[in-house]
Amino acid sequence: MSDKQDTFEPELRRDPLTGIWVVIANRSGRPSGETEREKVLPASACPFCPLKEKTTPPEIYAIRPGGGEPDSPGWTLRVVPNKFRAFDAGLPLKRQGMGMYDYMTACGAHEVIIETPDHEAQIRSMPREQVGLILDTYRLRLDDLRKDPRFRHVIIFQNYRVVAGASLPHPHSQVIATPVVPKLVKDKLTTAREHFQERERCIFCDIVAQETYDGRRIVSQNDTFVALVPFAARFPYEVNIFPKRHQHDFTLMTEEEKWGLVDILQDSLQRYYALLGDHESGWNVPYNMVMGTAPNLLPRPGRPDYWGTIEYDYHWHIELIPRLTKMAGFEWGTGFYINVVLPERAASDLAHALEPAPESQPVA
Amino acid sequence: MSDKQDTFEPELRRDPLTGIWVVIANRSGRPSGETEREKVLPASACPFCPLKEKTTPPEIYAIRPGGGEPDSPGWTLRVVPNKFRAFDAGLPLKRQGMGMYDYMTACGAHEVIIETPDHEAQIRSMPREQVGLILDTYRLRLDDLRKDPRFRHVIIFQNYRVVAGASLPHPHSQVIATPVVPKLVKDKLTTAREHFQERERCIFCDIVAQETYDGRRIVSQNDTFVALVPFAARFPYEVNIFPKRHQHDFTLMTEEEKWGLVDILQDSLQRYYALLGDHESGWNVPYNMVMGTAPNLLPRPGRPDYWGTIEYDYHWHIELIPRLTKMAGFEWGTGFYINVVLPERAASDLAHALEPAPESQPVA
Repeated sequence: MSDKQDTFEPELRRDPLTGIWVVIANRSGRPSGETEREKVLPASACPFCPLKEKTTPPEIYAIRPGGGEPDSPGWTLRVVPNKFRAFDAGLPLKRQGMGMYDYMTACGAHEVIIETPDHEAQIRSMPREQVGLILDTYRLRLDDLRKDPRFRHVIIFQNYRVVAGASLPHPHSQVIATPVVPKLVKDKLTTAREHFQERERCIFCDIVAQETYDGRRIVSQNDTFVALVPFAARFPYEVNIFPKRHQHDFTLMTEEEKWGLVDILQDSLQRYYALLGDHESGWNVPYNMVMGTAPNLLPRPGRPDYWGTIEYDYHWHIELIPRLTKMAGFEWGTGFYINVVLPERAASDLAHALEPAPESQPVA
Repeated sequence: MSDKQDTFEPELRRDPLTGIWVVIANRSGRPSGETEREKVLPASACPFCPLKEKTTPPEIYAIRPGGGEPDSPGWTLRVVPNKFRAFDAGLPLKRQGMGMYDYMTACGAHEVIIETPDHEAQIRSMPREQVGLILDTYRLRLDDLRKDPRFRHVIIFQNYRVVAGASLPHPHSQVIATPVVPKLVKDKLTTAREHFQERERCIFCDIVAQETYDGRRIVSQNDTFVALVPFAARFPYEVNIFPKRHQHDFTLMTEEEKWGLVDILQDSLQRYYALLGDHESGWNVPYNMVMGTAPNLLPRPGRPDYWGTIEYDYHWHIELIPRLTKMAGFEWGTGFYINVVLPERAASDLAHALEPAPESQPVA
């Protein structure tokens, strides 16, 4: 444990009362600072734009259709370490008790996927092929990070716009590998396992079946994916996307399913834009996208975090959360959420969002 | 369950995967709307100011030193129902399964404590006696709401400034009674009970003892209370305040302890102001204050939510959370938090925040 603010390595601490892990990481150099205001960073000042390759840490992976050196122009997608990392693979994994507390080094990974050279692009309106490349890269990074036995879970997410926590407007995703399975994920895994133990069914498949039968919370679907507003949505217009086929892990998607996901993701974000976006600036509503897939498997049954029946009981999914409301005292103190839009209404609004405006009815 | 957005009664839904309860409540008429910008509402437009008593719902309780009718001027503190309520005592308590989901009516209470007639006042600089009245009122509302056997938990909190979720700048607290014990509170209660069952000691008393011995995370203390930055603080400069004497419930405070709490609360907020406040406008940093006390006791052992050893195992406390950073995709998806300020550094900054600036050292 470090004592000096300016030099400390990121570390993990567990709250003894709630079981929540906190990363203590010095990110005070982050560009976003502490303001709530949107910064319109011009492409010329953007470290993620072409010709700025040397301003990022050396790249981990890139797609260069015409070939070329690492950290040179000509790429269509790059993966680089996060300059303001909360986790660091270079730290040795160390678990330690401190009196009644639990401490760990923040041994993990924190990467940025620069999704396109185009500073102004948005997922909703990118070429379909580019979104396909982004999903391919998610899979590659998952496969690669899972080779490190110190990492127990990998999460991939997007923060779109400053209000949603993004520090830079250039389209990017983040990848974080953690040496523990986070509490919220563990709660879901435990529920899914208990459901399976009693019934030999996947709870997510059950949810998708009930929602499809009910219909009121379905936003859209295609052959392979369904987008719906969850029954107990925490946020107005929250949308969950599930593969229709039972599948515990993101990396198991077939090529056909991948294009189904590209389509439903772009479709959902187009619905957000139509309903909630800023049509003057062309900006979409600020949102978070979170991809929740199975944790990394430990080889040995009986170890903590060994999820033995996970192939049967878990089901990967994507959460889309528009950032329209703020958390306040009630939410922090209780873990309760207040959602001001009825989930059935949100689903109906989104389901109809791409329809042409109806002709005004002639007066009878 | 209601279908129409415009007319629906608030309702409670439980997420089957995480156990989190969500209130679905139509609060779209709330003054704050969806903007992140601070509104400077003049006192003349403020529904909580004197002479505006008829613009609030009829008062539940008030202190009028000179006497007078309800909802008339001359008060030093008022309690009124929240106009944009998320819970409603008028709803019959109904629990219902919906396929695989859990639903309840939002039977509860949602009140506003208007802390002072002074639109510009702040807790940190109010007369000590006024803060005493506010704490007396917390106790009165707790005692009163606990008489309703349908309510299982009461939380009292303050949202200070728009960024922290406040819809009006006039100093106020909110009281929410819920028909379930919220998940985050339940997690804490369960941990505290398990700790007690093994050791016959209160986990909070253990934490206070360890922190006092260690010293590095202590912000301040007086005879009856201690303020500290938690070991795994989720937010920069988060502060927890604990009564030194073991005490599971807020209403058990002695008169001496009450004044100790007044002092440490004002002291902590003065430290926030000195370190993080806006010295030009006189505004403090936006913050949330959450008072976590024991849940309402059910009479019968064996019922869910019966917390049999709570007198011994729980310890009420106050959380102060400055709103300096934003939650983003990583936090929503994992329940992980990233804190950019080392807790020991935060405690040291706060501990020294009220000292006069040191003279510059003469060059040797």
